[in-house]
Amino acid sequence: MNAELCWLPFFGEALPQGRDPLAVAREEMALGMASLAGASCRLACVPGGGDGFEIIKDEQGYLVRGGETGVLYGTYRLLTALQAGECPLTAWTDPAFPLRMLNHWDNMDGTVERGYAGQSLFYKNGKFDYDADRIRFYGRMLASVGVNAVSINNVNVHAPADKLVTAELLPEVKKIADLLRPFGVRLIIAVDYALPVTMGLDTADPLDQRVQDFWKKQCDEVYAYVPDLCGFLVKADSEYRPGPYKYGRDHAQGANMLARALKPHGGMLIWRCFVYNCRQDWRDHTTDRPKAAYDNYAHLDGQFDENVILQIKNGPYDFQVREPVSPLFYAMERTEKAIEFQLAQEYTGHQIDLYYMPPIWKDILADLRRMPRHICAVTNLGDDANWTGHPLAQANLYTYGRMAWEGKALDGDKEAERWIALTFGRDFPEKDRLKAMLAASQGIYEKYTSPLGLCWMVKPHLHYGPDPEGYEFSLWGTFHRANHQAVGIDRTDKGTGFADQYPADMAAVYKNTDTCPEKLLLFFHRLRYDFKMRDGRTLLQRIYDDHFEGAEGAEQLLAQWRAMEGLMPRDIYENALNRFEKQALNAREWRDIINTYFYRFTGIPDAHGRKIYD
Amino acid sequence: MNAELCWLPFFGEALPQGRDPLAVAREEMALGMASLAGASCRLACVPGGGDGFEIIKDEQGYLVRGGETGVLYGTYRLLTALQAGECPLTAWTDPAFPLRMLNHWDNMDGTVERGYAGQSLFYKNGKFDYDADRIRFYGRMLASVGVNAVSINNVNVHAPADKLVTAELLPEVKKIADLLRPFGVRLIIAVDYALPVTMGLDTADPLDQRVQDFWKKQCDEVYAYVPDLCGFLVKADSEYRPGPYKYGRDHAQGANMLARALKPHGGMLIWRCFVYNCRQDWRDHTTDRPKAAYDNYAHLDGQFDENVILQIKNGPYDFQVREPVSPLFYAMERTEKAIEFQLAQEYTGHQIDLYYMPPIWKDILADLRRMPRHICAVTNLGDDANWTGHPLAQANLYTYGRMAWEGKALDGDKEAERWIALTFGRDFPEKDRLKAMLAASQGIYEKYTSPLGLCWMVKPHLHYGPDPEGYEFSLWGTFHRANHQAVGIDRTDKGTGFADQYPADMAAVYKNTDTCPEKLLLFFHRLRYDFKMRDGRTLLQRIYDDHFEGAEGAEQLLAQWRAMEGLMPRDIYENALNRFEKQALNAREWRDIINTYFYRFTGIPDAHGRKIYD
Repeated sequence: MNAELCWLPFFGEALPQGRDPLAVAREEMALGMASLAGASCRLACVPGGGDGFEIIKDEQGYLVRGGETGVLYGTYRLLTALQAGECPLTAWTDPAFPLRMLNHWDNMDGTVERGYAGQSLFYKNGKFDYDADRIRFYGRMLASVGVNAVSINNVNVHAPADKLVTAELLPEVKKIADLLRPFGVRLIIAVDYALPVTMGLDTADPLDQRVQDFWKKQCDEVYAYVPDLCGFLVKADSEYRPGPYKYGRDHAQGANMLARALKPHGGMLIWRCFVYNCRQDWRDHTTDRPKAAYDNYAHLDGQFDENVILQIKNGPYDFQVREPVSPLFYAMERTEKAIEFQLAQEYTGHQIDLYYMPPIWKDILADLRRMPRHICAVTNLGDDANWTGHPLAQANLYTYGRMAWEGKALDGDKEAERWIALTFGRDFPEKDRLKAMLAASQGIYEKYTSPLGLCWMVKPHLHYGPDPEGYEFSLWGTFHRANHQAVGIDRTDKGTGFADQYPADMAAVYKNTDTCPEKLLLFFHRLRYDFKMRDGRTLLQRIYDDHFEGAEGAEQLLAQWRAMEGLMPRDIYENALNRFEKQALNAREWRDIINTYFYRFTGIPDAHGRKIYD
Repeated sequence: MNAELCWLPFFGEALPQGRDPLAVAREEMALGMASLAGASCRLACVPGGGDGFEIIKDEQGYLVRGGETGVLYGTYRLLTALQAGECPLTAWTDPAFPLRMLNHWDNMDGTVERGYAGQSLFYKNGKFDYDADRIRFYGRMLASVGVNAVSINNVNVHAPADKLVTAELLPEVKKIADLLRPFGVRLIIAVDYALPVTMGLDTADPLDQRVQDFWKKQCDEVYAYVPDLCGFLVKADSEYRPGPYKYGRDHAQGANMLARALKPHGGMLIWRCFVYNCRQDWRDHTTDRPKAAYDNYAHLDGQFDENVILQIKNGPYDFQVREPVSPLFYAMERTEKAIEFQLAQEYTGHQIDLYYMPPIWKDILADLRRMPRHICAVTNLGDDANWTGHPLAQANLYTYGRMAWEGKALDGDKEAERWIALTFGRDFPEKDRLKAMLAASQGIYEKYTSPLGLCWMVKPHLHYGPDPEGYEFSLWGTFHRANHQAVGIDRTDKGTGFADQYPADMAAVYKNTDTCPEKLLLFFHRLRYDFKMRDGRTLLQRIYDDHFEGAEGAEQLLAQWRAMEGLMPRDIYENALNRFEKQALNAREWRDIINTYFYRFTGIPDAHGRKIYD
């Protein structure tokens, strides 16, 4: 075990070895209480209580009462509260969501798709290859914030990971399941829809009896090894992945077939809705990629089996810095849905740039109106000693778990405060400064990248650093169509009509430039550079200002981090320092390239005389 | 042997097995004459006659008199002339250049850097792995057009190719040398300047005695295996390759050290001048990459040993579609120079798009004034059955060899006519159409790609297809700085001063927009879109026109190729047909993206009402 940073340092080097959550809870309580002189605690398991728990203080000390996994969650809640100096007294608490999921995008060659924290925790060179203690520690981290289901392989299933559901690799999957089960964590396996073909059938058609039999048999085999498997995760007919469309079947037919094979075992079928035309012609102004998920799925409402969950990305594009909520969340009343976030900072700075997510989650959840019943996030984890590359990126994993438990937007500042206290100590001298850095980071990043919901001005494929026209003529349906007068796509009813996928009152707000949130103006509207923002500035000047301010913000983060020198282990400090230096350069590059890009179209200089390169 | 196309089909399947050029000449003459009923020929070797030869006709038939290799060249000249129906009588002929070189950019893993005709002819999976007969056939092709030196590995030397000059791989190098020697072809090895460090020294400093001793010893070893090795080729201090700059030494010091190690063996040291700052800041308007070769080398004139050849790319950038000649050719009077062309169609259509090179070579050589003493080209070859991917791309290898022999620009039409007659037969029914296609192809390609010498509007790294701003903010020093009013870099004395690297009279021509060749206008000048071209059109309209015409030209090439159906083996026809179809799409993409790019800046529509997408 070589993990250098975590929000649970008070456990020290010891790891629980118990075979079930209650046993682990007992061990953790003993380990955790050891550092809290004088405190004592009893555990009481409530059969049938599931994930819920309560913490009671009486004359004998603390009592954690909870269900089979609840007792473990309560233990961590109590210990972290005491360590952070908070009052741990709570009424009986149940998590808002039954499934609180993380998706790994790990490939069996050891790489992690969109991973920015080293290599896979599970695989190397095409095989399972891991440190069992590190997996246990990972289980502890997950349980401490309530995450209870983990998919262990990339949704883009590359061989040999397609064999994870076969006897060839199931013995290895079982070992991971056994390591994580005591922490209340169940596994999900991402499956390849074309597996029947790979395994010798001439079709993967979901209506073909042989295909149905194939998956039934496969599920029997899977559950013989891992009886509590949470289910399968599928990315079908998306970005060149195989799927039911190939056989002229719709996605309800495609998903239900797998769901029925899982059903006898109590498994869920989680079906990603990231389906769109990835061969779009930029000359075509009518096709609009953000409309795709709704267009592909909304009409299928009511046709999915009850153990199917549609997993929908938070926005209609693809984890961009600023998007509206996917309109699919407001549709499909009779369908189980999960909202998918991305902790991996694919478009948000690669865990080089600081980007603390609770503020953006708050915006998203505020717009959602009603939460879907499930929640998921792509992890930001790898085998880096600090788990997440940027030491401060851990805060996103921590707060994601907390949000998934509570089922609502949390106060990012308060969560940051607790995470800092746990990670760097209650008496960390610069805790307020660090909290302020986290709080400011999302806004800073948003300011120096694509303006006002415009999206896709990022370097193609890499997705770090600016390239204003990098996606402008590509096949991905990612256009902004900037010219010498205006920029953006009109997504109102006068344009692509995307806005009308929302409930009427929301659509009305988005479609009107007077009411559309300014941060989303260029997502919904094509605007002239002299468009007047609500504070009187022109759109162009607002873009300039944001970019100057964003780059200045990145410089300030760097300066603020320097104040942390000597307050933590040197390698943690230096690791982050190096990233803040890179972020400042990145922000400068964004500032200058975006400003120059629009300056070259307009010839209009900055109103405040700041340097825009020509 | 599985080569499906060549300009020497009359030899049939047989291959010469002789150990020296005279023996090969005798075999080839017998094989070739067999198909020419009634003709007869004698060979006479003139000791000391080298590459030169003459062909005489007398009452006994033909007599080829020539030097040790000349007799072989004369044999091919006679046979190809007779096959093509030409009169073979020539006075004594010597090649214009002593070294007529080809560079392979083959890696030992089997890939070919910027290769568009399959994998390497020499290597697979990190080892030598080839068909000896195919290497013999390759030798025949080279000798038939007079190429006499071949570098067999990528100038970017990736391990294990760095060991080609060590005992580890020299036995394998010797085998290739032995296969090609009978065809008069000598080997060149591209070496890694840092090899001394790889082999255990702590430095590669050219002034360090241990480094000098290392290379002397290494050369002794090399020449023990390959006594007639032509020499070494070095890309140093370029695009992250190691070189003498690391040790504070200049390139004369760096090159001479290697040259002195080669000298006792009669070897040449070929030193590439492709040195520039590849970490340039786009904000910097003063650094200008085309100036780099001149700035790095011109002042070193007279300091290179006599067995050093500076290998200079034809243009100051990097094999772009249209560049002026590198100004370095007009400098360094006391230095041996080679001009480097690129047959591999890196920027000229990847051997998908038709691009017959003699017309552009003619422009280049016309500007050169005085040819350098050596000539080189990056090959367009791979293990595809037709050698060059596009069957018609073979014509570029053929005409390159012819040009290297003659030492001057050749009539592209006449060369095409002979190549067509040899390849498809003297009576090929569509020979005029095919010749016209070849003749038009360079102009068509130039029209639909970057306009008027602007360069670098190509997709980054891939270098196929349009991306107008793909290199605009990169580190490679490749900018055009288009804005709403103007485009291009001012390279006159009012701008970067690049034009003043030319002799005064040429500089004067380039610096004046009235006299600068229009095809190079945007290489030397920054011009407003309303700049009046000599025929009265605006620059913008000229750009539009060229792109419409270029795309139309590509459509015509496709239509013309369809007329070839049934006139050649089906797979050759279909292979090229598929490429012409792709070219038409590529040209359409270039047309629309380049036109839209400038339309978005200006809002000015096409004067003839043709569709420009917005």
